[in-house]
Amino acid sequence: MMRLKTRLIHLDAGGKWIAILNDHDAQELGVRSLGRIRIRKDEYELTAIVNTTSRVVARGTIGVYDEAQARLRLHENDEVEVEPSSPPNSINHIKNRLRGRKLSREETYEIIKDLVSGQLSEVEVTAFVTSLHHFALDIDEATNLSLAMVETGNTLDLGGRLIVDKHSIGGVPGDKTTLLLVPIVAACGLTIPKSSSRAITSAAGTADRAEVLMPVDLGVDEMRHVLDETGGCIVWGGALHLAPADEIFVQVEFPLSIDPLLLPSIISKKKAVGANYVVIDMPTGAETKVKTLGEAQLLAQDFIDLGRRLKMSIQCAITYGGQPIGRAIGPALEAREALENLMGLRQDQDLIDKATDMAGMLLEMTGRDGGEETAMEVLRTGRAEQKLREIIRAQGGDPEIRPEDIRVGDHRLEMRAERPGVVLWVDSSKLVDQARLAGAPKDKGAGILLHRKLGEKVDCGDPIYTIFAEKAGKLEDALSAAGEEVAVIVGERMEMTLSQIKELRPPRERFVLER
Amino acid sequence: MMRLKTRLIHLDAGGKWIAILNDHDAQELGVRSLGRIRIRKDEYELTAIVNTTSRVVARGTIGVYDEAQARLRLHENDEVEVEPSSPPNSINHIKNRLRGRKLSREETYEIIKDLVSGQLSEVEVTAFVTSLHHFALDIDEATNLSLAMVETGNTLDLGGRLIVDKHSIGGVPGDKTTLLLVPIVAACGLTIPKSSSRAITSAAGTADRAEVLMPVDLGVDEMRHVLDETGGCIVWGGALHLAPADEIFVQVEFPLSIDPLLLPSIISKKKAVGANYVVIDMPTGAETKVKTLGEAQLLAQDFIDLGRRLKMSIQCAITYGGQPIGRAIGPALEAREALENLMGLRQDQDLIDKATDMAGMLLEMTGRDGGEETAMEVLRTGRAEQKLREIIRAQGGDPEIRPEDIRVGDHRLEMRAERPGVVLWVDSSKLVDQARLAGAPKDKGAGILLHRKLGEKVDCGDPIYTIFAEKAGKLEDALSAAGEEVAVIVGERMEMTLSQIKELRPPRERFVLER
Repeated sequence: MMRLKTRLIHLDAGGKWIAILNDHDAQELGVRSLGRIRIRKDEYELTAIVNTTSRVVARGTIGVYDEAQARLRLHENDEVEVEPSSPPNSINHIKNRLRGRKLSREETYEIIKDLVSGQLSEVEVTAFVTSLHHFALDIDEATNLSLAMVETGNTLDLGGRLIVDKHSIGGVPGDKTTLLLVPIVAACGLTIPKSSSRAITSAAGTADRAEVLMPVDLGVDEMRHVLDETGGCIVWGGALHLAPADEIFVQVEFPLSIDPLLLPSIISKKKAVGANYVVIDMPTGAETKVKTLGEAQLLAQDFIDLGRRLKMSIQCAITYGGQPIGRAIGPALEAREALENLMGLRQDQDLIDKATDMAGMLLEMTGRDGGEETAMEVLRTGRAEQKLREIIRAQGGDPEIRPEDIRVGDHRLEMRAERPGVVLWVDSSKLVDQARLAGAPKDKGAGILLHRKLGEKVDCGDPIYTIFAEKAGKLEDALSAAGEEVAVIVGERMEMTLSQIKELRPPRERFVLER
Repeated sequence: MMRLKTRLIHLDAGGKWIAILNDHDAQELGVRSLGRIRIRKDEYELTAIVNTTSRVVARGTIGVYDEAQARLRLHENDEVEVEPSSPPNSINHIKNRLRGRKLSREETYEIIKDLVSGQLSEVEVTAFVTSLHHFALDIDEATNLSLAMVETGNTLDLGGRLIVDKHSIGGVPGDKTTLLLVPIVAACGLTIPKSSSRAITSAAGTADRAEVLMPVDLGVDEMRHVLDETGGCIVWGGALHLAPADEIFVQVEFPLSIDPLLLPSIISKKKAVGANYVVIDMPTGAETKVKTLGEAQLLAQDFIDLGRRLKMSIQCAITYGGQPIGRAIGPALEAREALENLMGLRQDQDLIDKATDMAGMLLEMTGRDGGEETAMEVLRTGRAEQKLREIIRAQGGDPEIRPEDIRVGDHRLEMRAERPGVVLWVDSSKLVDQARLAGAPKDKGAGILLHRKLGEKVDCGDPIYTIFAEKAGKLEDALSAAGEEVAVIVGERMEMTLSQIKELRPPRERFVLER
């Protein structure tokens, strides 16, 4: 045991309990960097992850980040008792998983509990996630992991009401299906507590789109209130703390471009809101998460199987993901397009088809006949629009919002065809790159509006798409990318050579991570 | 591009270039945590790893750790230009390695260069190390990695002199062989630039033992000076910066108990000192790194093969690792034992056998006949002792040091036999645990002295071993462990049941990580 004086670092450690020891004190205690110490101050104590330094934190002092400081009620220069502590037992489970050993229910739960409470270091979390990448989760592990992720977060209790939900595994730009589907389904009397994410790798997440129309950062109680009132909601998952382990996993998955937790990540959030019937949208195409029909079918089986074990009925919709849905990419442009489709001011057939098909699936899963026709009818008669406006009001937005009220970027430039022909190829990943360079999703008014889609005729000089930005500098960034890499290819006949590789260049492969 | 005011964090980031952005500024720039930004201030610029925070670092400011601060010559409240930057290309190689793709020479070099210069985040380094654990290095990769590790660190140039070296993969306690072998070999006229590590998981590393006799934290120039004068040295590797990548790998390997870089780690350091002939000691036994003769033979082949590719002639000695070498465990006790054996004051046959065998191998590799006999002769006649004293003087120690000058812990307690019989089992890992609890390796005088070894006769009440500590509290810690877990088993006949497992307990497996 050692007595040390605290030095407050005045920095947060990303939710983790971390303390900094001088090298000499660490040696004296017999702990190394990423080892663990028990820190005690009066009646408060905790086990912290050790960082060591030869400078800055002097011998006899201990550097403490905000999380541990708050927990231990520490002030500058307090005296604390410090002793070496064994690392959490969950680390042994992670070490075993690294060797390919499958995890039991108890082991899984221990890992997730320690993860969520900030007890695992970045090295340990990364090792766990990469072990799931190397030795893929089997169905038992996925089940245990999903349940552990649910149990370590908030849950929504709607008192036994029948609950439906929908989720897309992502990867297709402009996918504003949820903005139509939720009000359609709710207008039919079903309860759909839709929580959505913000964009990670895309130009807009559903939460980003919905936020153009209404506040989305609701807590669980506010969410329940909206659902009681309207039967539907479209809220941001981040403020709900459903399955919060997932956010920690994303911190590792994103920089490594791996996604071994896709199934538990999605399923745990559906379970946390108490869903009974779920439709999973799996956009399939060269630039989406799932590339082939075969892959999609395997993944669909896993979803259905996992759902069954968690007492959820799941159906999957394998949808065409070869080009953007509708014509708008970017939060505000997409919100406007969705609203116009709901109001009957325009008909984007692919969007309407997706929304009514999947709404129909949910309706039929709950025992109704003619689901798709019902969904279409609800959309056509304006009942869906009315329901969306109810949801907007309940979430605190302006229910009278008109499409022209939605601000899109003032800085615009049209990309025009340099030859006549038809659109032969739309490269979603390049459109997403350009929309992000233009400022999306952070600048809500930034994005892309497609004037021509696959198979549509173009004359030389016709506008193919318009880039929107809120800031002139960002428009320039997007334009310079658009000039370098052609996102929409126009030709008279299919050209078979897509790319010629003559020299070694750093690989650029699109990685889709959306939750 | 964004202009931000600096806020100095006054903490080092473990050699990495890290900056902290407010969540809003990060979104505005379009970067996430662990993404990269380019920071510019006047003529200085660098690419930093991004951490994000919602608190502490306010919008419009950027938190800067010491490393980036020094590089950019920053003061508090300076204005810097910040823009998003693509991550280093080496991360793509790591992502590919995660999928099992083998690395080319250029890719390997890029990774190690970025690693050593602090450009890779902990998540990326961990992913790289775990990928090497999952998909083991092949011989080409091991070769490239070894060379890259040499090229990114210091090297020792002795002007074409013939150089021999020795290394143990570790795992057997009390192994002070190097303290005998180096002076024997140097006394025979060979040059042996021995760099050693401090203990990571053991009770004493060779650097810890040697430090009892002389200073060991020499730089490369000082090391060369000692070698010019005496032909030998025993210095700590840490101050030499040979293959510094290894230290970063250890930061990941240790908390995860994995060691996928064993071969490149050892070989790169031998290459960095320009070794031509190397003997690798592979202690083999239930508690050492290598458990079986078969395993040892495979590993020996890899060492020899890798050595050949790096133009080093390597031989391996598979040695008995079933109990400690000699009778002393702990830096001071071991240094004293080694000195006494060199002075002929005592003869620990296993220690002398190991030292003269391996010294003999090196002598014969360089073309001499009767290596072992020569080594024994050099030891017996006191020429080895004399050489050690020359080395001690050259490294700045007291060449007249006597065994009784070496301070060992004043707090002692004898563990005694509770029954008569012979020693049937010596559990090295428990002895190491107890020695470490008693304060080793940090407290140089702490450790264990074995009075009985395998097969030796004991009467009831005879002392089996003595625990030494510098501090009373630590002696108590060691004693309470010794009381719980018997490290030396005495019996009249072999008892076949080693342990009964009746309930689930957290697994405790010994992990040996020594460099």
